[in-house]
Amino acid sequence: MTAPSDALSRRLSFLAELEKLKSVTRQSRLVDGSRNENSAEHSWHLAMFAMVLAPHAPGVDVGRVIELLLVHDIVEIDAGDVPYHLAGKDLAKIAEAENAAAARLYGLLPGAEGQRLRALWDEFEAAETPEARFAKGLDRLQPVLLNLMTDGGTWDDFAVTEEQVMARCGPPIEGASPDLWAAATDLIRAHFAARRADA
Amino acid sequence: MTAPSDALSRRLSFLAELEKLKSVTRQSRLVDGSRNENSAEHSWHLAMFAMVLAPHAPGVDVGRVIELLLVHDIVEIDAGDVPYHLAGKDLAKIAEAENAAAARLYGLLPGAEGQRLRALWDEFEAAETPEARFAKGLDRLQPVLLNLMTDGGTWDDFAVTEEQVMARCGPPIEGASPDLWAAATDLIRAHFAARRADA
Ligand SMILES: [Ca+2]
Repeated sequence: MTAPSDALSRRLSFLAELEKLKSVTRQSRLVDGSRNENSAEHSWHLAMFAMVLAPHAPGVDVGRVIELLLVHDIVEIDAGDVPYHLAGKDLAKIAEAENAAAARLYGLLPGAEGQRLRALWDEFEAAETPEARFAKGLDRLQPVLLNLMTDGGTWDDFAVTEEQVMARCGPPIEGASPDLWAAATDLIRAHFAARRADA
Repeated sequence: MTAPSDALSRRLSFLAELEKLKSVTRQSRLVDGSRNENSAEHSWHLAMFAMVLAPHAPGVDVGRVIELLLVHDIVEIDAGDVPYHLAGKDLAKIAEAENAAAARLYGLLPGAEGQRLRALWDEFEAAETPEARFAKGLDRLQPVLLNLMTDGGTWDDFAVTEEQVMARCGPPIEGASPDLWAAATDLIRAHFAARRADA
């Protein structure tokens, strides 16, 4: 029996390791309430957000946005998911755990290939290029849309107020696309207004 | 309150509908055995296969392969997943259900945008372009890799033999990439040889 080439073996090992992202659980529930979302299906959903919402980000290279979103949560295989509403997060400790995760996981691939994927993750995290800003904005928009579809969803679990949603989601979503943020603002305000009317 | 533009509303409705792909269950189990894989996380995993295994498909437009894989299972939201080992499948009936699903789901989007995504799905199904052939080959390779990692996985459930795996997976994987198929062949033969040695 001939073993696959070393490069191919390493690619297959990395792909097999990615399997674990399907078991990393996020705070958001599926819209049908049946269970929490995992980071693998979340990444797929976000890649579809990029494909479909591309008209709201003129001039942005959507192919690279998709790549950024496909890899953006891979470090969670080792470092876990950190909800952005979590109070008292130790940002330095989280960054350290995520950097160690990136070194181990992308290190499974042949050198230059691992470095290319790692660079995509670094680009996403830095949020400086138009592509990374659009990707980050979609990563914020998706849970907002899911929460709006589940009558508040995890906002209720964490007692998140309208002002907090606006303050936390506004800058990244508006930075990604002003018209997406205008639409999201309307939907968020309508949701909380309906809540007040019910109360 | 201003409503989002009609085009944006339709894009958001489509993205909300995609949520349901996270609840479409496939035959393959996760490698840790905890549950069956769903079609959304499967689609993410396949997009990563395309990114990582691109060196085995020289000349292929990987960006389009990724798009083909992101959309390839969306029709399952209405039509469900049809395992390729299923005996006595009514192919005409499946095609009819999938076509109706494509019409409804892609019809949620503004016309030209829905047509573009629908055309990607048609391209995948036709398996004629190099991109679609590579995408189809990866769709076959992924469950093989998962089965090999779970000591036979769903091959055992369906009493699938070495000859059946070779016959069903060989043409699409070899059509996608001869060296990927050479590597897969070695791994499949080693798996069944070890099984015979155990028996
Ligand atoms: Ca499939």
